[in-house]
Amino acid sequence: MARPVVLFKPTPQFRDRIFTEETFARLNANFEVIDYEAHPDDEDFARRLRDAFAVVGQPDLDSNALRDATALRAIINVEGNFFPNVDYPAAFARGIRVLGCGTAYSQAVAEYSLALALDIARGITREDRATRSGSDGMVSATTSDSILLRRAKVGLIGYGNLGRSLHALLAPFNTEVRVFDPWLPSSVIVDTGALPASLEQTLAESNFVFVFATATAESEHLLSAEKLDLLPVGARLILVSRAAVVDYVALLERVRDNKLHAAIDVWPIEPIPIDNEFLELPNVVISAHRAGGIPEAFHSIGEMVCDDLELISQGLPPARLQVAAPELVGRYRNKPVE
Amino acid sequence: MARPVVLFKPTPQFRDRIFTEETFARLNANFEVIDYEAHPDDEDFARRLRDAFAVVGQPDLDSNALRDATALRAIINVEGNFFPNVDYPAAFARGIRVLGCGTAYSQAVAEYSLALALDIARGITREDRATRSGSDGMVSATTSDSILLRRAKVGLIGYGNLGRSLHALLAPFNTEVRVFDPWLPSSVIVDTGALPASLEQTLAESNFVFVFATATAESEHLLSAEKLDLLPVGARLILVSRAAVVDYVALLERVRDNKLHAAIDVWPIEPIPIDNEFLELPNVVISAHRAGGIPEAFHSIGEMVCDDLELISQGLPPARLQVAAPELVGRYRNKPVE
Amino acid sequence: MARPVVLFKPTPQFRDRIFTEETFARLNANFEVIDYEAHPDDEDFARRLRDAFAVVGQPDLDSNALRDATALRAIINVEGNFFPNVDYPAAFARGIRVLGCGTAYSQAVAEYSLALALDIARGITREDRATRSGSDGMVSATTSDSILLRRAKVGLIGYGNLGRSLHALLAPFNTEVRVFDPWLPSSVIVDTGALPASLEQTLAESNFVFVFATATAESEHLLSAEKLDLLPVGARLILVSRAAVVDYVALLERVRDNKLHAAIDVWPIEPIPIDNEFLELPNVVISAHRAGGIPEAFHSIGEMVCDDLELISQGLPPARLQVAAPELVGRYRNKPVE
Amino acid sequence: MARPVVLFKPTPQFRDRIFTEETFARLNANFEVIDYEAHPDDEDFARRLRDAFAVVGQPDLDSNALRDATALRAIINVEGNFFPNVDYPAAFARGIRVLGCGTAYSQAVAEYSLALALDIARGITREDRATRSGSDGMVSATTSDSILLRRAKVGLIGYGNLGRSLHALLAPFNTEVRVFDPWLPSSVIVDTGALPASLEQTLAESNFVFVFATATAESEHLLSAEKLDLLPVGARLILVSRAAVVDYVALLERVRDNKLHAAIDVWPIEPIPIDNEFLELPNVVISAHRAGGIPEAFHSIGEMVCDDLELISQGLPPARLQVAAPELVGRYRNKPVE
Repeated sequence: MARPVVLFKPTPQFRDRIFTEETFARLNANFEVIDYEAHPDDEDFARRLRDAFAVVGQPDLDSNALRDATALRAIINVEGNFFPNVDYPAAFARGIRVLGCGTAYSQAVAEYSLALALDIARGITREDRATRSGSDGMVSATTSDSILLRRAKVGLIGYGNLGRSLHALLAPFNTEVRVFDPWLPSSVIVDTGALPASLEQTLAESNFVFVFATATAESEHLLSAEKLDLLPVGARLILVSRAAVVDYVALLERVRDNKLHAAIDVWPIEPIPIDNEFLELPNVVISAHRAGGIPEAFHSIGEMVCDDLELISQGLPPARLQVAAPELVGRYRNKPVE
Repeated sequence: MARPVVLFKPTPQFRDRIFTEETFARLNANFEVIDYEAHPDDEDFARRLRDAFAVVGQPDLDSNALRDATALRAIINVEGNFFPNVDYPAAFARGIRVLGCGTAYSQAVAEYSLALALDIARGITREDRATRSGSDGMVSATTSDSILLRRAKVGLIGYGNLGRSLHALLAPFNTEVRVFDPWLPSSVIVDTGALPASLEQTLAESNFVFVFATATAESEHLLSAEKLDLLPVGARLILVSRAAVVDYVALLERVRDNKLHAAIDVWPIEPIPIDNEFLELPNVVISAHRAGGIPEAFHSIGEMVCDDLELISQGLPPARLQVAAPELVGRYRNKPVE
Repeated sequence: MARPVVLFKPTPQFRDRIFTEETFARLNANFEVIDYEAHPDDEDFARRLRDAFAVVGQPDLDSNALRDATALRAIINVEGNFFPNVDYPAAFARGIRVLGCGTAYSQAVAEYSLALALDIARGITREDRATRSGSDGMVSATTSDSILLRRAKVGLIGYGNLGRSLHALLAPFNTEVRVFDPWLPSSVIVDTGALPASLEQTLAESNFVFVFATATAESEHLLSAEKLDLLPVGARLILVSRAAVVDYVALLERVRDNKLHAAIDVWPIEPIPIDNEFLELPNVVISAHRAGGIPEAFHSIGEMVCDDLELISQGLPPARLQVAAPELVGRYRNKPVE
Repeated sequence: MARPVVLFKPTPQFRDRIFTEETFARLNANFEVIDYEAHPDDEDFARRLRDAFAVVGQPDLDSNALRDATALRAIINVEGNFFPNVDYPAAFARGIRVLGCGTAYSQAVAEYSLALALDIARGITREDRATRSGSDGMVSATTSDSILLRRAKVGLIGYGNLGRSLHALLAPFNTEVRVFDPWLPSSVIVDTGALPASLEQTLAESNFVFVFATATAESEHLLSAEKLDLLPVGARLILVSRAAVVDYVALLERVRDNKLHAAIDVWPIEPIPIDNEFLELPNVVISAHRAGGIPEAFHSIGEMVCDDLELISQGLPPARLQVAAPELVGRYRNKPVE
């Protein structure tokens, strides 16, 4: 019996980054995989789309293309974000599953965020640099601004996959967590043991603030100068979602004036220009968009694709990839991962 | 009614480091505190010892001194380690509580250890330095050796207060934890959900190894060259207890050869000499004995002293400070926290 | 501005069971609610459906009805199960959110299941009856078959909302959990810290088995006589999902022969006939379909309806109710709750 | 080389209840065990005491006996409570470890207490009885007083081993826990994430109250009629420590009047007389002192004895049994576990 056809066109993602030999062999064992990374051929893609069971990748799929794709059951974005090159309403109307791999990065980002928070709580990177530079400061001087995470007041800006994954890691620290997420009702936040709060409350009441907000029209410069001034002096700010959410000029001033410690993984311009003024400041950890894209995260995408295509081909719902919300597709303004 | 007399002689610890104004006021409210830091007077100390309820600090207390101290109920060491300047058997025979403040640092050390582990798992400090130095490496190159802590194999060398506190923080990471502790029966380790293991197994089976072992005659160079070679290539080693436990020459070679990533908080010579060769290596986080001594940890000592002296004066057992084990006093070789 | 119209027709559910005064007032504040429980009028319903924003309840909605309902954004089933009286494919094609309230009962069922497991682990109900009947057995006799849940081997048959909620409650017991769920890939189960297993392994290796499987064609008598014989002697079986999943004749024999202890909340015939032979046996807890339907669970439905209708009316995805999986609608054979 | 001598005299405890064949063989492998249960001989005991390394059991040990026991390192009570037949101050002065096995029962009692709480939260035992008696009440009637433990307000009276073990089991329920324990400073309770409270606050603010208080002069009828009236109507009271702590006449009235639901494991007269009026009430679970004494708990005592005697014989501190607090020995008024 013929295996269902899967059209594989991962660009700008790469096959070898998201599939191990093992998972790619598994994909081929269960499906007839046409690999357009290995052999690009747009005409062939268009022709085969009519009989294809699934598309893995983010090629253009307009209403015409989808109209003829009568066997199509799934479109799996392996790049992290949904782009406007697919006619999503047409896909939803046709009962095609539109799936994304954003959750593949959640644990990596959560662990990195916790690492950054603990780092700026204790000045680890700062003092590593200082000791290597010959500083022989008294220990008590280098730890005088150190604080514990235990029983700290923590704010989460955004409570999607990233916020939830980080929140889980905070469990043993017995923290008091406030969550600001305008896309969620309070009850969801209360259920997790956190306190629902406004953006203003979250900032004013937290000594550690994690920014996980997605970039949308509404969230542009959500953390303006005025909002940053709500933070307590000495607060730790961890930025790992999207640069558009923060006013970096205002942030720079406050870190320079020692009002805030920051750990920053996303930047208005990437790669970070060498004259970026943050690079001169001690109380900031500089990270060049490294929170999510690690080998284990990438490889989990291949596994998730195998898992969910197998489920769908058996008439079962997908269980691992993120189901695109019709209401949200089109709202996101994310830049692609590098 | 007269308040019980407490002789306070914290040297080499400092009053203002371990007591806040609030806790020192509380101590004075419940006890008549004679402060020998403020007013040193050895003769006065010797004379008042005969009627004292408690000594807070680590002055010499030989058998003669203790023989006359008929009202003495507690000796509270506020420096972290028990020194051989007290006749402990005499104190135990007299029913005097001998207490230490080691647990005051547990949470600080545990959080710091987790921070170090996550840092060397992800190269955070290394890449902060690289970016500040103008490196514009591809993100994928800087993350190619990044690993998750989730579901990692973790080894704990030593399972006292530090090991237990760190273990609690690992709970959400779903790790497989092996514990080597020759002072504990397997059952205690099994009860915590970890796997009891030999030193060799712990090293050979773990990708993250935390060294919490106390320095004793038996633990000197416990991690010899031969033992370090049991670690898997790419393992992360976190050293936060005592330098004597590790062969630093052997460790240096293995970090230089990129077989191990290390995060080191304790050093054979402190302060760290500027020509220490570790300072030139990228895959190591340099930390100058900063894991435990932070303001919150120090201040908790004052609170613990108040709590336990109040309990003892009410005829109740102490509940916060660590009760000295007669079997262990005298075994420790710890250097004082400077 | 006009509030969106919500058609409310909860039969066989009741308004006052799922809405408190507070939540019903909230619903009316945000929507124009037409209450067909208070004022049944099928013609009015049909007429208003054309302009309605949402239907709350489980009335017939065939393709004709849906074709004209051009403003309809949500169909919210408040009864717990999806019935075949709605043309689901038509609803999905129209982009209508089809939502259910199954998760409202998860916590109640999970707590009840844990209670049942601990009860039959310790003979609580059995010995309450015995003592009231005048038994004065030695304590050691009444506890000789008592077992701990700590570090026990636990099997979960089915890992949907109920299985996950129960699993969360097991966390402090340090159990070894096996999960059998044919609708899920192993990776999902591994991620939770449990062991994926076949039905046979799950039964043979577990001392506590929780049956949460949904009734489908495939799951009818999943626990046959042959399968029940795989359980270790003395195993505890907790049945809280659907009676169709188990062969009760075979189960009765094994409980009577003292091979199993059981706690049973669902029955082939309900109400339980007085001559049901289980009623005579000591090592069984008799429960008359009481696991989920408690006031807090019912009232959460009203709150969930308010939360999600408000989100959808703001152009956001629902966050609390269960999104119907197109693949699964039509598979379920559940009987309505009472 | 001669093995250290252990004098084993467990009465009123029994050897076969606390040792398995395996643990008793282990004890004999490491020590020369003189078994006075098998061969009672008081003269032999007195004679051998002079050279014995340890006594396991609770024989009389007055100051004369202890004076000559110059090799004695440990007295291990295997019955659960410290009786006044030992000269404890003499033992402490001699540096003899005085150990008890109370913690052996903690998990069993904690699991049982949780089971009782969930049972009376949901009426499980009550409705099992009702259904067996032919009641065919509507489900909604039998669940109308059911409540969740999730996010409930919980009070713990006493926070020793039992309270801590139960508290650990509550972790996934996201409860608000108040603790009353006059032997502990607030800081210990705060550290666990609970709220320190007075007895009055704990009662008035809790819907589930667990009574773990030890019987002492101060705790006699701690829960008097007046105090019981502080509980909210419908509160659940779980009694598992000592009967002396509660006024049973007052409790009976309040359960009869349906103001409280109770689960009771300890009774003023045991075995429970058949005319005890609680036996007629529906909203009470009757339990005949069954919370702790189960096979796994008893057998852990033998293992704990082996573990700690081996440690002590190696010059290490005990790690499993409970170290007797000099301040508390003599305060307890516990009845022996039968």
